Amino acid sequence: ISSKLPEVGTTIFTVMSKLASDCGAINLSQGFPGFDCDPELLDLVDQYMRAGLNQYGPMSGVGALRQRIAEKSKLVYGVDLDSESEVTVVSGATEALYAAVAAVVKLGDEVILLDPAYDSYAPAVKLNGGIPVYVPLEMPDFSVDWEKVKTAITAKTRLIMVNTPHNPSGYVWTQNDLDTLAELVQDSAILVVSDEVYEHITFDGRKHLSLLTHPVLRAKTFVCGSFGKTFHVTGWKIGFCLAPPRLTEEFRKIHQFLTFGTVPPLQYALADFMSDPSRYLGLSDFYQKKRDLFCEGLKETPFVFTPAQGSFFQMVSYGHLSDEDDYQLAVRLTKEIAVASIPISVFFSDKRDLKILRFCFAKEEKELLDALEKIKNIKI
Amino acid sequence: ISSKLPEVGTTIFTVMSKLASDCGAINLSQGFPGFDCDPELLDLVDQYMRAGLNQYGPMSGVGALRQRIAEKSKLVYGVDLDSESEVTVVSGATEALYAAVAAVVKLGDEVILLDPAYDSYAPAVKLNGGIPVYVPLEMPDFSVDWEKVKTAITAKTRLIMVNTPHNPSGYVWTQNDLDTLAELVQDSAILVVSDEVYEHITFDGRKHLSLLTHPVLRAKTFVCGSFGKTFHVTGWKIGFCLAPPRLTEEFRKIHQFLTFGTVPPLQYALADFMSDPSRYLGLSDFYQKKRDLFCEGLKETPFVFTPAQGSFFQMVSYGHLSDEDDYQLAVRLTKEIAVASIPISVFFSDKRDLKILRFCFAKEEKELLDALEKIKNIKI
Ligand SMILES: CSCCC(=O)C(=O)O
Ligand SMILES: CSCCC(=O)C(=O)O
Repeated sequence: ISSKLPEVGTTIFTVMSKLASDCGAINLSQGFPGFDCDPELLDLVDQYMRAGLNQYGPMSGVGALRQRIAEKSKLVYGVDLDSESEVTVVSGATEALYAAVAAVVKLGDEVILLDPAYDSYAPAVKLNGGIPVYVPLEMPDFSVDWEKVKTAITAKTRLIMVNTPHNPSGYVWTQNDLDTLAELVQDSAILVVSDEVYEHITFDGRKHLSLLTHPVLRAKTFVCGSFGKTFHVTGWKIGFCLAPPRLTEEFRKIHQFLTFGTVPPLQYALADFMSDPSRYLGLSDFYQKKRDLFCEGLKETPFVFTPAQGSFFQMVSYGHLSDEDDYQLAVRLTKEIAVASIPISVFFSDKRDLKILRFCFAKEEKELLDALEKIKNIKI
Repeated sequence: ISSKLPEVGTTIFTVMSKLASDCGAINLSQGFPGFDCDPELLDLVDQYMRAGLNQYGPMSGVGALRQRIAEKSKLVYGVDLDSESEVTVVSGATEALYAAVAAVVKLGDEVILLDPAYDSYAPAVKLNGGIPVYVPLEMPDFSVDWEKVKTAITAKTRLIMVNTPHNPSGYVWTQNDLDTLAELVQDSAILVVSDEVYEHITFDGRKHLSLLTHPVLRAKTFVCGSFGKTFHVTGWKIGFCLAPPRLTEEFRKIHQFLTFGTVPPLQYALADFMSDPSRYLGLSDFYQKKRDLFCEGLKETPFVFTPAQGSFFQMVSYGHLSDEDDYQLAVRLTKEIAVASIPISVFFSDKRDLKILRFCFAKEEKELLDALEKIKNIKI
């Protein structure tokens, strides 16, 4: 058979995590916490599992959790959402992104992707008959040049996919980013998919500006979020999609035939757990300590870097030291110093090599210090 | 926005389960057990949740569970599978079906569907640019007329989607069905998706013949299976796909961008739980008692029926009594006698109304007896 995705191999996250494990390396590649969730969350799961809730839940998600998401949107963003018609719980943000694309992209539609982008966007677009149109982000900060986006828009543009805080760079959108995007799309049929899985992880007093907060964008956007990234349970694969009723309707038509539903006891447990907002409001501080610790240590390495504005990733550059390509370097570091990272080239449409690596700092202090000790010894 | 699936509404299972709940009716519509799983399975989940396994697991599924599936295939079907390259764990059989279709169906490809079929097949085909070609099953037993399938095959046929034991009818394929399908496809590039989620539920001594057991089909087929249907945890949304390495490779390319992975503690728990094969080998006897009880009671109703050969569904006909359409009747029975069922018309491509309802008998004896008591009072 001929492949539908000939250019796609196994996702880099699987490749690097496996290499890390084969090499006994500290795994700062794939983005997941190196610590467990709050045991209270597990108590709740156990309680709901024993309560006979192990059969299909509602296709759109358990009502209590949808309401909790609406409450959070009100509390954090000041936005009123109708939990019945605007909130859908799905099997991870990856499903949310795929279903949003599948709901609206038709054959030949153009979809603007800001390059580099998370590795699931382009395959989702292509599998749905869409044509990715890449707009490069500005270096070195990975901000958006809106003139370039404007130039990329054609009569065929159906969707723009955006991501704030940005993976891999951590760039956090400003009000100007929202306003300018809104201006660009407001008189068109262009829709937006916004990947906001790191919504609760921003640093140095920055605030995440959800696209929900902009009235023009709110009416046109599928906001995709993640419980895994927020509550340290990335393996649970629970995410959500927030969109106006008409978009949610189409989104659910897809969702019902992709996975239909998501594990109810996990949903009920998260709903209870979220009743205390400090459990997500405290996340920026929690991760800022880790970012600061990691960046402090990085100062003693030959890498150059700017501390991440958000997300749990820190990029570092080594182009002033060596010409080695980033993929090779990431593999070599995993083998030689036993620290795994992600080469940034994999996120670029053309695999452009800017000599940047991405480290995940969502780890215990001890693991970060051990990793830094090893990184100090690198030969580049 | 214009819908990608204009003909699709909310899936009938959601509609009828909601109506049942609104009416306080006994819900024999959507197919899920009315009882809980073995508490030992929940003990195992709790144990693995506390063992710090709540982050991303392997994209293709936890190794222990993939090995267990391979062992089961050996034990039950005498088939050797390589758990590394031929077994993938996904977020429910629905995801398996979708990903298999997405992996191979390209724009304009024809996909043969045996009509009536489960309601996710046609949308999966259409969303991937394929064209469903419907071959009606034979009445009254829902068997396959292979001459009709042969006639439907063209140079554009890419895939045939089959389902045994069949939902909604319970029809169980014979060796002749497998052999004839194999003859039809063996010298072609046609692939097969086989939905075998009721593999462990067959009655009156019948054996499920997995398409894996036929060498020609084994090389061409994505077999989609479900842990939810077998271990009474339909809400967990864990299923699997078995396919030769080259097909599995393409399948995983899709899976990694649909959901990426599935809750590891649930996977580890299922792997341990499956170490005792009686836990799935006993399922046919378990459900045969329920089918027999339910059919015994049905004899005292005005419905006519043939006991199901497999699955946990029983169809009943009422065309000799009334012209009321099946959808209306299902709604009316839910409201008037407080028993919900599924109208079979929804499974047909043309919503053809054969005056048949489907009842799910995966319920406690008491619930089945209560439902039968109510069904006896119907006015048709
Ligand atoms: C689904 S694995 C990828 C995890 C992640 O978001 C990342 O590492 O960027
Ligand atoms: C995913 S809900 C549908 C359950 C089912 O398989 C059925 O009722 O036929």
